[in-house]
Amino acid sequence: MKRPEKLYLGIDGGGSKCKVLLADEHGQALGTGISGPANPNQGLDLAINSIMDATEQALHAAGFASSMVDQLIVGAGLAGVNLPKYRLMLEQWDHPFTQFHITTDLQIACMGAHNGMEGAVIIAGTGSIGMAHVNGQTHELGGYGFSVGDQGSGAWMGITAIKQALQALDGLLPNSDLTQRVLDFTQCRNAQELAQQMANLKPSAYAKLAPLVVEQAALKDTLALDIVLNGADYISRLARKLLTYNPPRLSMIGGLAPRIQPWLDEDVRERVEPAIQPPENGAILFAQQQALVSEKA
Amino acid sequence: MKRPEKLYLGIDGGGSKCKVLLADEHGQALGTGISGPANPNQGLDLAINSIMDATEQALHAAGFASSMVDQLIVGAGLAGVNLPKYRLMLEQWDHPFTQFHITTDLQIACMGAHNGMEGAVIIAGTGSIGMAHVNGQTHELGGYGFSVGDQGSGAWMGITAIKQALQALDGLLPNSDLTQRVLDFTQCRNAQELAQQMANLKPSAYAKLAPLVVEQAALKDTLALDIVLNGADYISRLARKLLTYNPPRLSMIGGLAPRIQPWLDEDVRERVEPAIQPPENGAILFAQQQALVSEKA
Repeated sequence: MKRPEKLYLGIDGGGSKCKVLLADEHGQALGTGISGPANPNQGLDLAINSIMDATEQALHAAGFASSMVDQLIVGAGLAGVNLPKYRLMLEQWDHPFTQFHITTDLQIACMGAHNGMEGAVIIAGTGSIGMAHVNGQTHELGGYGFSVGDQGSGAWMGITAIKQALQALDGLLPNSDLTQRVLDFTQCRNAQELAQQMANLKPSAYAKLAPLVVEQAALKDTLALDIVLNGADYISRLARKLLTYNPPRLSMIGGLAPRIQPWLDEDVRERVEPAIQPPENGAILFAQQQALVSEKA
Repeated sequence: MKRPEKLYLGIDGGGSKCKVLLADEHGQALGTGISGPANPNQGLDLAINSIMDATEQALHAAGFASSMVDQLIVGAGLAGVNLPKYRLMLEQWDHPFTQFHITTDLQIACMGAHNGMEGAVIIAGTGSIGMAHVNGQTHELGGYGFSVGDQGSGAWMGITAIKQALQALDGLLPNSDLTQRVLDFTQCRNAQELAQQMANLKPSAYAKLAPLVVEQAALKDTLALDIVLNGADYISRLARKLLTYNPPRLSMIGGLAPRIQPWLDEDVRERVEPAIQPPENGAILFAQQQALVSEKA
C-alpha cells in the first residue's frame, strides 16, 4: 500500500493486555495488535516484549514490514507509569521508534473518552481510579491499588463478597442467597474451604465474582445490596470530587462501569456521558499532540 | 534437683514466637523458654527448630540435661494446625518426646483462660478469632486470616486507617487528625507516598498502627471512631454468637483485647471475664488431660 506521510501508533498498555492501533496522519486506522501485560511493574522486559509484539502485529496487519517500526510516532498510555520509578525505566529504554511519548493509561483513556478534549474520567474495572484534565492541569484520585484502595472496583466487590459470605456462614450476618452463589461459584462447601481457597489471590481472581454480586443486588439480596451500595457510594464521591474541577464532560469506562452506573447517586449519574473513543485512539491523539509539541520545540 | 515423677511441657506456638513452660505433675512451673515462629505454615523446619530451641531453654532453666527431652509429656497449641495439611505434617514429625499432643493455639488459650474448664475465648491481636468449648464440643468462628477476615483485629484497624487516610487525602472523606497521625507515623508526605509505602505489607506491620487508631477514637476523631466502632461491632457480634453456645465463661485475650473491650456493646462487655492463666499454662493443662486419656486407652 501507499506509505502515508506520517505513521502514528497508539498503545493502551494495561496489567493484563496491551492493545495497539496504527493510524495515518488523518487518524485513519491501518491495523491493530494485541498482546500480554504491559505494566512495567510486572517486569520491564515483559512490558517491552508485549509492546513490540503488538506493534509488529499492527504493522503486518497494515501490510508494512517490521522494519517500518523506525517510522512510528508512538503515544503509549501505560499502567504503572504514574510511579516515577517505572516511568524512568521506560524513558531509559532504547526504543526503536522515531518518537516515543509516555503517559499513563488513565490519561489516554481520558483523551479518548473526550476525543482529545479536556474532561474527567473514572475507570471502574478490576481496579478503580479517577482523573480530571481541566485547564491543562491533571488531577488524579484513587488508584492506590487493591491492597489499600480500589474501592468500588470489581476486585473490591469480589473480595468483599467473600468476607461477607464468611461472616454469614459463621452466623454473624443475616444470610442471603449471595452466600450460596459464592460457594457455588468457587466450588467450596463451607467457610473453611472458602477461606483457604480464596485468600491471597490476585485482584483479577476476585473481580470474577463482581458480576454475580451486581446480579444479586438487582434481586435485592441484602448482602449483595450492601456491597454494591457501598462501592457505588465511593464511586459517587469520587465523581463528585472530579466534578469540582469543572470538567466539560465526565465519562466512565472499564468492565464494571456499565454495571455500577445505575447504582450511582442521581446527581452523578445524570452527569456521566459516553466515552467517544476507546483508550488506544486516545493514545493516537496523545501521540499527535506530543509530536506537534516536539515540532514546535 | 530431685527429678519429678512426671514432666509436662506446654507449648504456645504462634506466628511470631514460641513460648514453652516446663512443669511437674502438680503443675508447678520449673522453667520457661522462648524462641521464634512455630506456625508450620511458615515452614515445618522453622516450627520444629523453634519448638526444640525453646524446649531446651526450659530444660536448662530447670537444671535438667537436654537428654531429658525424652521424658516430656508435651501439649502443643500451634497456630496453623486448624488446617488439616499442617496438622498432619506435625503429626508425622519423628519427635523426641515421650508423648506429643497437638492442638490449636486457640484451644490452649481457651483452656488457660478458664483454668482447664470449658468456656469461650476471643483472641484480638494481630488477627481475630473466637472459640467456644462447651459440652465437649468445639465451635470456631472467624480466624480466616488477614486477606479475607480478621475484622476488628490490630492488622484490620491499621490497614483500614491507611484506606481512610487515603480517601481523606483525596478529599473523598471529611479529614480528621487521624490522617496527619498516619502520615507522621509512616513518615509519608502525601497519598502517593502512603499508598506506595503501605501497600502489600505483612499483617504485623499494619497492626503497629492500631494503638494510634484507638487513641484517636478516644479523642472522638471521626475517622478513627468509625474504624474502632466498626471493629468493635464485629467483635460484639462474634461474642454474641459464642454466647449462644452457653459457655460458663467468656474471656478476651491478645494485644488488642484491653483496648477494644471498652468499645464493645454493653451486653457483651458485661459478660467478659479475665483470663485465669496464660496460653502456655493452658497447654500444660491440655498435656495433662491428654496424658490421662492415653493412660485410659
